[in-house]
Amino acid sequence: MSRVYNFSAGPGALPEMVLKKAASELFEYGNAGMSVMEMSHRSKEYIAIITETEERLRRLMNIPDSYHLLFLQGGASLQFAMIPMNLMTNNKKCDIINTGAWTQKAVVEAKKFGKVNIAASSEDRTFAYIPAFERLALDPDADYVHLCYNNTIYGTKYTGLPGTGDVPIIADMSSCILSEQYNVKDYGLIFAGAQKNIGPAGLTIVIIRKDLMKRVPENLPSMLDYRIHAENGSMFNTPPTYGIYMAKLIFEWLEELGGIVEMEKINRHKASLIYDFLDESMMYRGNVDREYRSLMNVTFTTSSPELDAKFIKDAEKSGLVTLAGHKTAGGMRASIYNAMPVEGVEKLVEFMKDFEVKNR
Amino acid sequence: MSRVYNFSAGPGALPEMVLKKAASELFEYGNAGMSVMEMSHRSKEYIAIITETEERLRRLMNIPDSYHLLFLQGGASLQFAMIPMNLMTNNKKCDIINTGAWTQKAVVEAKKFGKVNIAASSEDRTFAYIPAFERLALDPDADYVHLCYNNTIYGTKYTGLPGTGDVPIIADMSSCILSEQYNVKDYGLIFAGAQKNIGPAGLTIVIIRKDLMKRVPENLPSMLDYRIHAENGSMFNTPPTYGIYMAKLIFEWLEELGGIVEMEKINRHKASLIYDFLDESMMYRGNVDREYRSLMNVTFTTSSPELDAKFIKDAEKSGLVTLAGHKTAGGMRASIYNAMPVEGVEKLVEFMKDFEVKNR
Repeated sequence: MSRVYNFSAGPGALPEMVLKKAASELFEYGNAGMSVMEMSHRSKEYIAIITETEERLRRLMNIPDSYHLLFLQGGASLQFAMIPMNLMTNNKKCDIINTGAWTQKAVVEAKKFGKVNIAASSEDRTFAYIPAFERLALDPDADYVHLCYNNTIYGTKYTGLPGTGDVPIIADMSSCILSEQYNVKDYGLIFAGAQKNIGPAGLTIVIIRKDLMKRVPENLPSMLDYRIHAENGSMFNTPPTYGIYMAKLIFEWLEELGGIVEMEKINRHKASLIYDFLDESMMYRGNVDREYRSLMNVTFTTSSPELDAKFIKDAEKSGLVTLAGHKTAGGMRASIYNAMPVEGVEKLVEFMKDFEVKNR
Repeated sequence: MSRVYNFSAGPGALPEMVLKKAASELFEYGNAGMSVMEMSHRSKEYIAIITETEERLRRLMNIPDSYHLLFLQGGASLQFAMIPMNLMTNNKKCDIINTGAWTQKAVVEAKKFGKVNIAASSEDRTFAYIPAFERLALDPDADYVHLCYNNTIYGTKYTGLPGTGDVPIIADMSSCILSEQYNVKDYGLIFAGAQKNIGPAGLTIVIIRKDLMKRVPENLPSMLDYRIHAENGSMFNTPPTYGIYMAKLIFEWLEELGGIVEMEKINRHKASLIYDFLDESMMYRGNVDREYRSLMNVTFTTSSPELDAKFIKDAEKSGLVTLAGHKTAGGMRASIYNAMPVEGVEKLVEFMKDFEVKNR
């Protein structure tokens, strides 16, 4: 079998060029005489790799020196606990804007450490929109406002940020980091699991404003303490070395492509190919209000669950795989992360048209 | 440059056969049409991989059904916190046998959650031995006894276990798991970072007796709760999918080799090649009391730090790399994990002999 177009929500597709390079270097990396997986994380070869990875991501996202960039483990799920443990320490309360499963999980964990105010929720319409900023019930004394910039499951995306004054915004960018331009300075903390736009699962990126370190209490478990990771350059213990190397290859690929400016153009083009077709189709319907449509996760349905199931099955036969929606959302979901080529999206839209004609 | 013999203490060498297989499958795995790194962890292809990985490890270590086998993240360092959080919950005290840096780190973390009794320490002679069991000051009311079966830095190894009655033994096996036969039933919990005998960094193995789950308190952060990981088959969140796949390849290699019985024979042979030479040499000296010598990490010195430095430099020129001792221990350390072939050890001993003749 040849390679398929993989619309998985995560772990998701990686660029073919990157996979080929990784395969060619797996047995022996450069002149090191060994695989990256076999390198001591303290070796000069590996220090060069992690340093380059950090430099490339700082350039790509224009991360100021006033922010730490950490390479951690445990995914967004561990961040849901680390964030309140480290930062909900002044007034012991936070605001969370609930836009679906990922913020709901954040609420569960944050409640173990303080008071959580749901500043707004879009649950009333199955998370098909982002709550209007003017109606947010924000607490001026909250230690932070937590939001999920792109909801992987429902396919929503913020189009800007609410005004929160001095209260820092903490953003879960697991499924949208590096997909469009963000101004890092607008955030107190950005976190992202790697397995969508960065590399293999098991690596977590945290970008945190240095002045927030003052909030970190004494006596946290060391591995859950942002300050300890920052002071040790993400080497308090052995980091996920191969995942960081894969991220380096991804960042290299992105920079060669022209950086986030170019990537965003391609992503907007890819997303519009599907959304434009959804809007003119008589059979398919997008799940999300137009202005909040995700660039990364396109959710849609046909006229019935039976037809949805047939769609997913037929698509698979055509080499378009992992198109089933999340079990809690149903329907279809096409995750079109950075690594999904335009041709993959074109093939999907072609298939959708064809399927509509045949099953109308 | 061709491949070197890599004596790194971790991340360490991986079997060439395994690396070649990984390289050949990296771009496309079997008939999946994608790389393992790109697979949804919920896909049937990936479920087959993680299931096979678990089955192979259960066979290799003869893990009874009364034990959970978990694939986690965060390394031994996170276990140092998770163990007391989950299990130091009855009498809120534990015993730790201090045999070097890794148990010292465990003490630091455990103290954040309860009372730690150092049942014995070998610090008086720079951790060159394992404390005698008959002199252990064990507390019969301790929630558990924590020990490090093989100390990577100093090169010591237990040769058996102390009698602890009903108090479960918790063993850090990061640098010795799968190197020799263990009776899992002797332990309440075994944990190991993968980056020595299992696979790439970023994967952590936890083997835990099911009845201990009763001790897990309510309201732990979900990612730090053994029960939640067990109930979700290590899929509470996205596991480190590629690391688990690499572990599968390692386990496959071990089973084809004849399992742990054969591996242990090879490891004893490899270790004796070096130790026998150390004992007859006039220049080198092993750091550890004979009966506690590690099979995995052989620590030794020449007659002076200057000569040690020359040894490390000259060895590197001969393709024998990462032989420097840990920064806190000095001298030399040859880590000869499962993946180190007998030829690598033979070459090292040959080099040692030659170096002795030239520098006597």
